[in-house]
Amino acid sequence: MLNLNFHPAGRHFLQIPGPSPVPDRILRAISYPTIDHRGPEFGALGLKVLDGIKTIFKTEHPVVIYPASGTGAWEAALSNTLSPGDTVLMFETGHFATLWKKMAENLGIRPEFLGLPGVEGWRHGVQADMIEARLRADAAHAIKAVCVVHNETSTGVTSDIAAVRRAIDAAGHPALLLVDTISGLASADYCHDEWGVDVTVSGSQKGLMLPPGISFNAVSPRAIEASRSARLPRSFWGWNEIIEMNRTGYWPYTPSTNLLYGLSEALDMILEEGLDNVFARHQRLAEACRRAVRAWGLEIQCADPSVYSPVLTGVMMPDGVDADVVRRHIYERFNMSLGAGLGKVKGRMFRIGHLGDCNDLTLMATLAGCEMGLKISGVPVAASGTVAAMEYLAAHTVPLSLQAAA
Amino acid sequence: MLNLNFHPAGRHFLQIPGPSPVPDRILRAISYPTIDHRGPEFGALGLKVLDGIKTIFKTEHPVVIYPASGTGAWEAALSNTLSPGDTVLMFETGHFATLWKKMAENLGIRPEFLGLPGVEGWRHGVQADMIEARLRADAAHAIKAVCVVHNETSTGVTSDIAAVRRAIDAAGHPALLLVDTISGLASADYCHDEWGVDVTVSGSQKGLMLPPGISFNAVSPRAIEASRSARLPRSFWGWNEIIEMNRTGYWPYTPSTNLLYGLSEALDMILEEGLDNVFARHQRLAEACRRAVRAWGLEIQCADPSVYSPVLTGVMMPDGVDADVVRRHIYERFNMSLGAGLGKVKGRMFRIGHLGDCNDLTLMATLAGCEMGLKISGVPVAASGTVAAMEYLAAHTVPLSLQAAA
Amino acid sequence: MLNLNFHPAGRHFLQIPGPSPVPDRILRAISYPTIDHRGPEFGALGLKVLDGIKTIFKTEHPVVIYPASGTGAWEAALSNTLSPGDTVLMFETGHFATLWKKMAENLGIRPEFLGLPGVEGWRHGVQADMIEARLRADAAHAIKAVCVVHNETSTGVTSDIAAVRRAIDAAGHPALLLVDTISGLASADYCHDEWGVDVTVSGSQKGLMLPPGISFNAVSPRAIEASRSARLPRSFWGWNEIIEMNRTGYWPYTPSTNLLYGLSEALDMILEEGLDNVFARHQRLAEACRRAVRAWGLEIQCADPSVYSPVLTGVMMPDGVDADVVRRHIYERFNMSLGAGLGKVKGRMFRIGHLGDCNDLTLMATLAGCEMGLKISGVPVAASGTVAAMEYLAAHTVPLSLQAAA
Amino acid sequence: MLNLNFHPAGRHFLQIPGPSPVPDRILRAISYPTIDHRGPEFGALGLKVLDGIKTIFKTEHPVVIYPASGTGAWEAALSNTLSPGDTVLMFETGHFATLWKKMAENLGIRPEFLGLPGVEGWRHGVQADMIEARLRADAAHAIKAVCVVHNETSTGVTSDIAAVRRAIDAAGHPALLLVDTISGLASADYCHDEWGVDVTVSGSQKGLMLPPGISFNAVSPRAIEASRSARLPRSFWGWNEIIEMNRTGYWPYTPSTNLLYGLSEALDMILEEGLDNVFARHQRLAEACRRAVRAWGLEIQCADPSVYSPVLTGVMMPDGVDADVVRRHIYERFNMSLGAGLGKVKGRMFRIGHLGDCNDLTLMATLAGCEMGLKISGVPVAASGTVAAMEYLAAHTVPLSLQAAA
Repeated sequence: MLNLNFHPAGRHFLQIPGPSPVPDRILRAISYPTIDHRGPEFGALGLKVLDGIKTIFKTEHPVVIYPASGTGAWEAALSNTLSPGDTVLMFETGHFATLWKKMAENLGIRPEFLGLPGVEGWRHGVQADMIEARLRADAAHAIKAVCVVHNETSTGVTSDIAAVRRAIDAAGHPALLLVDTISGLASADYCHDEWGVDVTVSGSQKGLMLPPGISFNAVSPRAIEASRSARLPRSFWGWNEIIEMNRTGYWPYTPSTNLLYGLSEALDMILEEGLDNVFARHQRLAEACRRAVRAWGLEIQCADPSVYSPVLTGVMMPDGVDADVVRRHIYERFNMSLGAGLGKVKGRMFRIGHLGDCNDLTLMATLAGCEMGLKISGVPVAASGTVAAMEYLAAHTVPLSLQAAA
Repeated sequence: MLNLNFHPAGRHFLQIPGPSPVPDRILRAISYPTIDHRGPEFGALGLKVLDGIKTIFKTEHPVVIYPASGTGAWEAALSNTLSPGDTVLMFETGHFATLWKKMAENLGIRPEFLGLPGVEGWRHGVQADMIEARLRADAAHAIKAVCVVHNETSTGVTSDIAAVRRAIDAAGHPALLLVDTISGLASADYCHDEWGVDVTVSGSQKGLMLPPGISFNAVSPRAIEASRSARLPRSFWGWNEIIEMNRTGYWPYTPSTNLLYGLSEALDMILEEGLDNVFARHQRLAEACRRAVRAWGLEIQCADPSVYSPVLTGVMMPDGVDADVVRRHIYERFNMSLGAGLGKVKGRMFRIGHLGDCNDLTLMATLAGCEMGLKISGVPVAASGTVAAMEYLAAHTVPLSLQAAA
Repeated sequence: MLNLNFHPAGRHFLQIPGPSPVPDRILRAISYPTIDHRGPEFGALGLKVLDGIKTIFKTEHPVVIYPASGTGAWEAALSNTLSPGDTVLMFETGHFATLWKKMAENLGIRPEFLGLPGVEGWRHGVQADMIEARLRADAAHAIKAVCVVHNETSTGVTSDIAAVRRAIDAAGHPALLLVDTISGLASADYCHDEWGVDVTVSGSQKGLMLPPGISFNAVSPRAIEASRSARLPRSFWGWNEIIEMNRTGYWPYTPSTNLLYGLSEALDMILEEGLDNVFARHQRLAEACRRAVRAWGLEIQCADPSVYSPVLTGVMMPDGVDADVVRRHIYERFNMSLGAGLGKVKGRMFRIGHLGDCNDLTLMATLAGCEMGLKISGVPVAASGTVAAMEYLAAHTVPLSLQAAA
Repeated sequence: MLNLNFHPAGRHFLQIPGPSPVPDRILRAISYPTIDHRGPEFGALGLKVLDGIKTIFKTEHPVVIYPASGTGAWEAALSNTLSPGDTVLMFETGHFATLWKKMAENLGIRPEFLGLPGVEGWRHGVQADMIEARLRADAAHAIKAVCVVHNETSTGVTSDIAAVRRAIDAAGHPALLLVDTISGLASADYCHDEWGVDVTVSGSQKGLMLPPGISFNAVSPRAIEASRSARLPRSFWGWNEIIEMNRTGYWPYTPSTNLLYGLSEALDMILEEGLDNVFARHQRLAEACRRAVRAWGLEIQCADPSVYSPVLTGVMMPDGVDADVVRRHIYERFNMSLGAGLGKVKGRMFRIGHLGDCNDLTLMATLAGCEMGLKISGVPVAASGTVAAMEYLAAHTVPLSLQAAA
């Protein structure tokens, strides 16, 4: 392989909340020879993926695909819709919401950061009532956009996006709704059009099961309208020229051709399984994971069961335990990667990814690795989480004939 | 992918005792463009793999690599050393020993088939004393070869090859010693030279972690000597011309170039880990697997703990349970392949492969799949095998720094 | 890559008459993870390739696929149909016909070797009248089979197989007709059933564009009938058990799964292009190549234009020129592999492969490499062969819309 | 493959000036499973590529690698060093210089666009004396940067960057020097430090032989200094945080892991060949290509032999010939992609790429495709360009032993 250093025997278990394990079909697809992105064959590829990705976002409007990783798509959402000095309302649900706020500041936007106090904010989803109250108070409509994260990768908490839209509408406020579902798309149900989202930001290396490197902006007509007067300087991220050229399947500048091969394959895979089956599988695996955590006697980071993430589960450590030491033991002894606690919860929790190309036995391997790692690290464990997870899974199996799209 | 039918989401767990899961490094290696097997670049490849494979067989004598799957190497071992009507002594240790005997008959050899009675023979290894007794009785030296299987893929029982050699020597008998370690090589320790084996037969799709398609004959000087007078017709399998051309890294006919790429990579991988580490890893995983089986309250096919296979474990079902039904449930519900019971034990046991590119978490996934499958199939399970396996593994982990060759 | 030694920059041109360049689609296909060859998914693959390969041989009878390279399929054809000491009629058309005869001798068959005298025999195809005359003389029907090579890889000469069948029938002789089209299949038209062939031998690494490692026996009902009484010892090569298990898509022993993935893809590719288009493309490229050779003022090995091979062209060197020196210059200076002269014509000619995944520009690169190599080696060249080839190709282009199967 | 539409038989010839053909080694490397970009293994990869890429830019200062295609790196160069309303001096050498200017305008920069009049500007490199004169006139130092393109992909003309630096210095002007060598890097010699460049912009899909998707900013200490006061809004493109985290081999946000695998392999390949050998090979191929164009009696787009591009050659069509019709014939009949004329020269020329993984025979195939395509399109051709190219190449071959790094 790359010969960087020694690779332990056996498959590595990549159980972080993204990048998720890339399936063989997609790895083979991205390794086809690069073609001329101005030639006829490319146009057919472009049209296929541009059309297919709309199915995943559940939108009939354009989805812009950037040859850049997800952070770029955050910037694109802001710079296409806002002007220097604009005020936006952001909601602190975790580390990534905080990073997006920091980006807004870097770009000369003025974010107001709502949220529950302290760590509590990192254990709950967006509070739509707080948004509604704040918007009602903004009689002058100084707030140009509301920015929320649909699936907080740092905590394992989702947010109710439809409720945010209802809050905005209830306040009679014209603010745009910008949503990050980088780690939620294609794992958790998401309805760009139905939920009235103006810009949805997403990336490739999570539910879409691709390597990182491409990212998305799904845009509503209102967002496009807003982009006409938005004055943040932009060129690479500018929607207009891309959307215009996308009509024939091409891009104004060089796209990431090989990752688009992968996207084409990913779309085939997801639609072969069926979106609803994909979502149900994530829910099943997530519930089994939570049962394991509870059996261990540990606390789940997400304190509100109505917004548990189907993508990942945050596992809180007892006081005095350094979660990163546990993670290192698991990495070194069991060849598995878990997500670290970030920001406010650094060292206090770890994150188990159960998204994308994940199935029952992958999850069982993961939970076994955690359970052994906890023991080796001296963390007291009440009961076997693997046994609890197996009980749930065995009682909720799906026969092969029902695993594919009807 | 190949679009043959629907592929369930998530990685398939291929836990049969071969083909074992082929690591990504090897899959990439076999996908390099085929080269001219008469050109200079090929000669360098040929010399590398011909030299490297000797390290695995622990021999200083030639190892013949056939562009044919393992069954062919069985035929090669017989047809290079024997003449029509020759008597050979074979030992019934399971299904593959029986198939080799049938092949001998097909080729016009007269096999005598020793063995313990009934199913007992399939639960123990070769009984060297029975061989010694039989050879002592053969004063006329009518028996030309003793043929035994080192690791019975159908049962999970190994045989003590050094003891067979001692038995032959103790009897003062000139018979050749022919050994099949198709599923043992590179998983269980094997010493072609030290154990005095004349022909060792092996294949690619087990401990070597390659796809099936190439196979091996390691040959002693005595075996080569015997081939000079052996009169079974042979051409494709003939050693002489191959060994002669192998001196410069080439083959008399077309070799399986792309699988040789894979072999080159496999040798690198095994030697990076270190053969002793490879063997210790297999022993650890096998012991963990057996502890799981015992916890379930099920019987291990191998009745003699001194010859447990490090490659696979045969799991016997209680009376009245059809093992193939259990296997089908596991395949359809958990996307895992297990080995079927073969021949005398068809439907009465299944086989768990824990060889090649296997590590602790792969084994844990496998055991969890079995445990859930047993429950779904209504097989009573005394206690959690996964918990028992985790206890053992957690108590015997190997730190990353000790997992590579020194 | 494999790091065996230095790889010069740019793509290697593999212009030998096999292995032919393996297309990317096939290289990707063979790199999919190996599956259980006893599982349900494999059966679907098996049935697909076993059915598809019949289309290529143009037969409705079974085609046996061996996990062994082409030489093995030669042995299979003989050992399934003949008994020790049987007489067969073989025809010397070149090096591979000679090797097949040598194999027959190794197996205890008595080949009679017909042929035109000296090098002339290597410049013409099979002379059906000589076969007819010999068979007429065999009133006792001692001759059990007639064995001929359809496309002589060593010379670039094909043989008229239908004429051989007519000769056998005209002589009223019951001999079986065994044909090697290892390098002809899927490049030159071949009609197993219509031409009345009893066993057709072929391999993977030529017109089928696969790496070497699998090979074929297409068998007529008469051949199967003959196999019932044939007494050459056989086991691995035995048709019966394979054909029996193939009914459900499986093999009695381990097949070369990953090469079967490649075969599945190759069949898709060939049928997408359409067999007739494939044959026409080979004829066009071969004619362009011959025009280049004539322009250089060199002689084509094949002296009979009615049997020019569409697969390769043998190029004879002027007296005093060592063809292998020319080939070495071309390899070292232009990163291209050509076929060597073999046996009777060693050092006197080289062979240009233009088969499989070859198109106009690949051929032009090849001819340019030859032309420059000839000059560098001091071989006088009458005129530019590349110009002659371009004239022909430009006058006979096929628009994209006509390159695919209708 | 991707099954978008029919793929003609045989390899596609991708002879555009980028993306260049991606070698098999790199395609295999990018298809390895994605790893955790926060794990230990990634850090080793990061340090390797960050260090290696400096060798290619010939710099000892940081090179920032973006998970975004080349256009993004243009934006990064501007947004890190400039403030809204800043004046920059740009030089019109072709289509890409013009696009970069348009981007500057989009970002709120005021570009002054120097250049020779009409199409002449597109046939010559940067005129350093014009830059010097303009800078001397800028006594107030209103001009903050000079932006030039090193290798104009649209024309096949290079520019003398060292001369531009000398011009700036001669004028005693503090402007930064920003250079685009997206299509020059690793094909044409480039010396970031020695030439006194402040920001060099490059991309992956040209001389580095990677798919598109990652891009580069090599930055001087002065550029970093300038970034401290530059006030264009930036976040994703900001150098500081990236450079800071790169010290340990990591990125502040998600890098394009799989393309970094490819970069690691590309660096190995380039250094195995040796940078000087790479440059010499490009020069040799470019000269052979130009000899072909001259033999055809056609005009080379670049009118100044001292700045011929080693990367591509622009071929001008006679009056009345639509170059895009010629290109389409070549695409449809010969399965080869050529570059179109862009902007001012649309339809009047085509571009032949001879960069990256290109060797003598690839070039010969390309020239043969052009020569046949010209004839089919009715373009009068004076003499055979392929013959002219072969004469040059055969007289300037490099023996295998001299093709690798010493």
